Amino acid sequence: MTDDPDTDTDALVERVRDGDLRLHELDDHADADAAATARRRLVESDADVDLETVGAYGFPAERADANIENMIGAAQVPMGVAGPVTIHGGAVDGERYLPMATTEGALLASVNRGCSVVDAAGGATARVTKSGMTRAPVFRVADVAEAEALVEWVRGNEGRLREAAEATTSHGELTAVTPYVVGDSVFLRFRYDTKDAMGMNMATIATRAAAETVERATTASLVALSGNLCTDKKPAAINAVEGRGRSVTADVLIPREVVEERLHTTPEAIAEVNTRKNHVGSAKAGSLGFNAHVANVVAAMFLATGQDAAQVVEGSNAITTAESRDGGLYVSVSLASLEVGTVGGGTKLPTQGEGLDVLGVAGGGDPPGANADALAECIAVGALAGELSLLAALGSRHLSSAHESLGR
Amino acid sequence: MTDDPDTDTDALVERVRDGDLRLHELDDHADADAAATARRRLVESDADVDLETVGAYGFPAERADANIENMIGAAQVPMGVAGPVTIHGGAVDGERYLPMATTEGALLASVNRGCSVVDAAGGATARVTKSGMTRAPVFRVADVAEAEALVEWVRGNEGRLREAAEATTSHGELTAVTPYVVGDSVFLRFRYDTKDAMGMNMATIATRAAAETVERATTASLVALSGNLCTDKKPAAINAVEGRGRSVTADVLIPREVVEERLHTTPEAIAEVNTRKNHVGSAKAGSLGFNAHVANVVAAMFLATGQDAAQVVEGSNAITTAESRDGGLYVSVSLASLEVGTVGGGTKLPTQGEGLDVLGVAGGGDPPGANADALAECIAVGALAGELSLLAALGSRHLSSAHESLGR
Amino acid sequence: MTDDPDTDTDALVERVRDGDLRLHELDDHADADAAATARRRLVESDADVDLETVGAYGFPAERADANIENMIGAAQVPMGVAGPVTIHGGAVDGERYLPMATTEGALLASVNRGCSVVDAAGGATARVTKSGMTRAPVFRVADVAEAEALVEWVRGNEGRLREAAEATTSHGELTAVTPYVVGDSVFLRFRYDTKDAMGMNMATIATRAAAETVERATTASLVALSGNLCTDKKPAAINAVEGRGRSVTADVLIPREVVEERLHTTPEAIAEVNTRKNHVGSAKAGSLGFNAHVANVVAAMFLATGQDAAQVVEGSNAITTAESRDGGLYVSVSLASLEVGTVGGGTKLPTQGEGLDVLGVAGGGDPPGANADALAECIAVGALAGELSLLAALGSRHLSSAHESLGR
Amino acid sequence: MTDDPDTDTDALVERVRDGDLRLHELDDHADADAAATARRRLVESDADVDLETVGAYGFPAERADANIENMIGAAQVPMGVAGPVTIHGGAVDGERYLPMATTEGALLASVNRGCSVVDAAGGATARVTKSGMTRAPVFRVADVAEAEALVEWVRGNEGRLREAAEATTSHGELTAVTPYVVGDSVFLRFRYDTKDAMGMNMATIATRAAAETVERATTASLVALSGNLCTDKKPAAINAVEGRGRSVTADVLIPREVVEERLHTTPEAIAEVNTRKNHVGSAKAGSLGFNAHVANVVAAMFLATGQDAAQVVEGSNAITTAESRDGGLYVSVSLASLEVGTVGGGTKLPTQGEGLDVLGVAGGGDPPGANADALAECIAVGALAGELSLLAALGSRHLSSAHESLGR
Repeated sequence: MTDDPDTDTDALVERVRDGDLRLHELDDHADADAAATARRRLVESDADVDLETVGAYGFPAERADANIENMIGAAQVPMGVAGPVTIHGGAVDGERYLPMATTEGALLASVNRGCSVVDAAGGATARVTKSGMTRAPVFRVADVAEAEALVEWVRGNEGRLREAAEATTSHGELTAVTPYVVGDSVFLRFRYDTKDAMGMNMATIATRAAAETVERATTASLVALSGNLCTDKKPAAINAVEGRGRSVTADVLIPREVVEERLHTTPEAIAEVNTRKNHVGSAKAGSLGFNAHVANVVAAMFLATGQDAAQVVEGSNAITTAESRDGGLYVSVSLASLEVGTVGGGTKLPTQGEGLDVLGVAGGGDPPGANADALAECIAVGALAGELSLLAALGSRHLSSAHESLGR
Repeated sequence: MTDDPDTDTDALVERVRDGDLRLHELDDHADADAAATARRRLVESDADVDLETVGAYGFPAERADANIENMIGAAQVPMGVAGPVTIHGGAVDGERYLPMATTEGALLASVNRGCSVVDAAGGATARVTKSGMTRAPVFRVADVAEAEALVEWVRGNEGRLREAAEATTSHGELTAVTPYVVGDSVFLRFRYDTKDAMGMNMATIATRAAAETVERATTASLVALSGNLCTDKKPAAINAVEGRGRSVTADVLIPREVVEERLHTTPEAIAEVNTRKNHVGSAKAGSLGFNAHVANVVAAMFLATGQDAAQVVEGSNAITTAESRDGGLYVSVSLASLEVGTVGGGTKLPTQGEGLDVLGVAGGGDPPGANADALAECIAVGALAGELSLLAALGSRHLSSAHESLGR
Repeated sequence: MTDDPDTDTDALVERVRDGDLRLHELDDHADADAAATARRRLVESDADVDLETVGAYGFPAERADANIENMIGAAQVPMGVAGPVTIHGGAVDGERYLPMATTEGALLASVNRGCSVVDAAGGATARVTKSGMTRAPVFRVADVAEAEALVEWVRGNEGRLREAAEATTSHGELTAVTPYVVGDSVFLRFRYDTKDAMGMNMATIATRAAAETVERATTASLVALSGNLCTDKKPAAINAVEGRGRSVTADVLIPREVVEERLHTTPEAIAEVNTRKNHVGSAKAGSLGFNAHVANVVAAMFLATGQDAAQVVEGSNAITTAESRDGGLYVSVSLASLEVGTVGGGTKLPTQGEGLDVLGVAGGGDPPGANADALAECIAVGALAGELSLLAALGSRHLSSAHESLGR
Repeated sequence: MTDDPDTDTDALVERVRDGDLRLHELDDHADADAAATARRRLVESDADVDLETVGAYGFPAERADANIENMIGAAQVPMGVAGPVTIHGGAVDGERYLPMATTEGALLASVNRGCSVVDAAGGATARVTKSGMTRAPVFRVADVAEAEALVEWVRGNEGRLREAAEATTSHGELTAVTPYVVGDSVFLRFRYDTKDAMGMNMATIATRAAAETVERATTASLVALSGNLCTDKKPAAINAVEGRGRSVTADVLIPREVVEERLHTTPEAIAEVNTRKNHVGSAKAGSLGFNAHVANVVAAMFLATGQDAAQVVEGSNAITTAESRDGGLYVSVSLASLEVGTVGGGTKLPTQGEGLDVLGVAGGGDPPGANADALAECIAVGALAGELSLLAALGSRHLSSAHESLGR
């Protein structure tokens, strides 16, 4: 490298133009920032665009080494906070600001309103009721007789599979292996306790070792390390039913006067909207999501805390309930498959790490897993606030409509 | 405002502490950047954290006025490019770099490899085959006799509904209204051509007007402007079947030698992985996504171009096919419900606007809708490249495994 | 034939044993009853069983010529009646006994109890809100560009397709053709008004003609006349969402005292059971059926009236709602895809024809379609009665439980 | 009773007309046949119909006492046989005629053709790979904290629940209890080994006892003994994924010449039809059934052997695979949730018992469960034959079409 970064970059750009280097090889010939600059210039020139703000990122590019290739800069997504909101969780207790990054106007205001109502009711309760990251390789066997034999072998050799899997990880524990047979394809769904890591990588590596054990001991051949029964980043009933990552629920009981004064509607109106929209409407739509807009909160908090944005898909498998109870309003939201971590992945990126800090859940928890549990509970409460606010907005419209209809 | 920004911010922080102002009211008393700074300081102090990089955003905060409330800064998500890749689309033709923002290491490299294989095969074909943004309010009626009457009224008064809906928008067109009856709930699914806008807001406003027309002319009462048959931000079969936003397909026919030399596997091995994983595995999982990792590409390109991250949910409703054909490999990916826009929402944010520029699709298209179609086609080709690359990675493992098994 | 039936049968049995005839060829050499007898004897001897009651069927075997091959006799399924119940339908008005054939003890008693409650409330309302039998062939095209061209051709040539399809039928009308693209597969979902016929055969024959028109006019090749987007005899969201056969709803408003005195529970308890079981439970199960046991009534009335027993699958796509209203209980059941006919198929068999007679809906209706509509409404009311009765049974248990719990 | 049955019946009819007796009380005042006759006459007169053939049932009515109430006679469904076909099963080995009762012309011929092809290939292999009948009550708790406590209690007290459940049954075994939390509803899915019984009643009774144990030991209140996570008689992903009753697969490898000579098509053509129709088409339809017409065979064999016709719904959760292998054709069908029994329910009815005899599986098996396993394997092979035959019919059309297209 020369001392003159511009000269250096110019030279790199030239070498790519000459076909001497490819875009992704730039990292081998310059530091991360210079490589990003060179790539940005090439794209700017080739596509005739100006990438000034993309280039105006606020951290050393090498901090993103494990998160991206062919980097040219960063997308900047506006971040704000809702709350603070009081959470009575299994792993978090007290007031928390909820960091959210979004481009959808009104979302944060809506969640914020929900938080203030939850707080007026004394806070929300939250619990992780199931936990485990899954990976499900698919094997080919000769026929169904061999499939049956493989299933029996697996049932009799869980210990051996656990040993192989856990040898690859210092933290992870294999908690279950469930076989599924479809013709000459056998799927084995491995479930792990991955502590504070979201755990997809850990599960994949451990499963590879277990799959090799299967191949050595049986006649089965591995076709794909992921056979889609995992299921990662696709809407799938198996996740909605059995869970993946954290299954987490948050709920709150709100006095009638709080509903009426702050939300300008009634418990009954909110319950009706929830039934017709979230239950009947979703049923008729053939949906796996019986909620109003949980994905909005999941996406915004995922972006603010370095989670995998593609896993918003599974995060949307949520059921909201609302009923009038003891004169007040009981509302709950249950997310079946919220895949979160506080170590690894995008959590170490500078702005995302600060997002986790706002919640007080960055890094490994004590005991291990406690921070990821706490993050799940915070997101569930955010989702609860969002549901409450949107249902109330629809319900109050409904009231005014009902009011008008009296006059006609 | 004083000339001294720090003094100014200190004063604002103090007023919030004193209960004189609330967090979200700061925007009324300071410019957007000062308000964000004040909020950031309050959160830093309350939560005992350092938000330095969150505060190091590279654009005037007022540019995000329409995108967020309670702003404290920005999340910075690493952005890179894959390609360039040649696209033979209905609305885009030629080479394009694909901008992607992600925190998942190896994703961009994988898509990049897929792009190079697509290019070696002469590029990918892409087409939008269906288009339309939907909103489905739910109405309450007295009983099923009244439900039937409402359905008949709607079928006989589409013109009136169109008139009411289109009076609210200069661009949007109402293309269909479909009624669904469940007991005393009647859902009307309105479908709009929203041109280059993703169109959720446009559709909501137009549907409100149409719903008021329904209420005035019939005995039905609106319960919720969105009755979840839309379906927005939830996994739902209605979107996978009937589409929402753009239904877009990309495909490519790759010569066998390209598959063997660049992907180190065979068309047959890739087809087998696709069948057992994407078809049989997804079928067994009760999934609406018959693909490997389309959501990864959708999420990364959504973040890079200012789309709504929560709509990654619907973006994952995709089916991948792969078959050996004429000695080569035919691969396709069909996204049923890709909700994209090139105007409005997050598209005007600085880094996101530059992301759109990289694809040459920022702003309104000519004819209207052409830019959003082009964006959909670019994302579909990115998804195709991602599918190809991951299936090949799994398939080549499979080959090496088969090879090893010969020796045992 | 000889005059001695036994001699005749013996000879036939012998010829099959000698390999001179095959089982299914017996019909060419004897009348239907003698062929059935010969087959029965062969099976009795080969499998060492006694088929006396199977052979004791009460109608001439030739009456079943169009309904079965290789006949050996008949399965006799106990048939009873529930009701009478008062129905205020669009196509049926007045009291009806509901014929049901079942082997499940307590089912008929349960529906009967429901009917008496419905009657005490003044009867049930019922309406068919959508109608149409579908068939969806799948075509292969070269690539997505050709897929787009095919879709456009179809949209521009519905008249031609209608002409081809309707030339094959005297009654049927083609009402819609909807294209769906997945890679190089294009599905065209044809929807027909098949009047009083269930219509699967009519739709298949008409669609074959339309598909030939498509093949002649375009580059598409027909791969299968049914491409599973129909969807026949599989659980499928497309039917639950868009309907197939009849979409029919029945509902009733029951005074509180009737609920309390006859069902020994309260409107509130029934509503709670319905919410937690039929809505929340089904949501969590990833179900397309949000009801308690609609399939029981559909199956029993299908068997009693000569409908296709395999279409019970689609008949189970039903949503039940229950709410406390004006002090009483409102209950509804909406069956999305009830495939019924009063002509053709099993409707002409002797016992089944009598089953239709009990409802007064045998044969073609006036206007055409009215009898099949009436049958759908009768089944919907039977389903409503069954739902009401089972929900009440669960709800009253719940009350007694609640009562006990006060004492502990 | 008098000696004159007609007089006796006349008197009963009169008493019902006078309001002295209700229809369902007739059984208390006459033997089963006389009661049925009286009811039939009343319906004949009230509905102005002739129920002669309904009354011509061929068994003593008291044999149906446990299967129906308000009996008026029987529906007679034509029964035939397909095969014989050779089955290499886990619980059945050798040639079997398959009894089928249906009203759908051509179905039996189609399955018969499939059986002959399977036999020409040396027979089909079949295995039950998972087994268990489920019942899932739903409990109400105060909030999610209590829900978590209940889940923990259940996990720590499986022994106690097993003891309570198994005290109610001489054969059944409780094999698992799985909790699911949605807000303040907790579902416990109990899974039982019910041996040769389909097991729904056994599971319900045992679960009632276990649920009472839960209520006594915790704060939870039972809301409904069935909470729809069972899932009985509704299409539900939980059954397709986790199985209910028997999960059973049948497969066969057919030499190319057999495919070509007997089915007039090729392995490749059949595989293509299977992919585009059963995989891609079903995927696009949002289906849980990835097969051609498995429900047809399930329904016909259920009717012929006294199974519950409403459980055809779950029987249709099947995946068919087909691929060209070693020059031949490999075909498999996997039914996830086939609920069958050879004791109890309709299996003791005369014609249905004879149907079971044809398969050699009537009554309890040795070891217990073996007969129900065998029945499941026979149905799976019938389904395989049906799939093969229909796919071939579509595939050969396709070939002829391809042939024609060469000439145009």
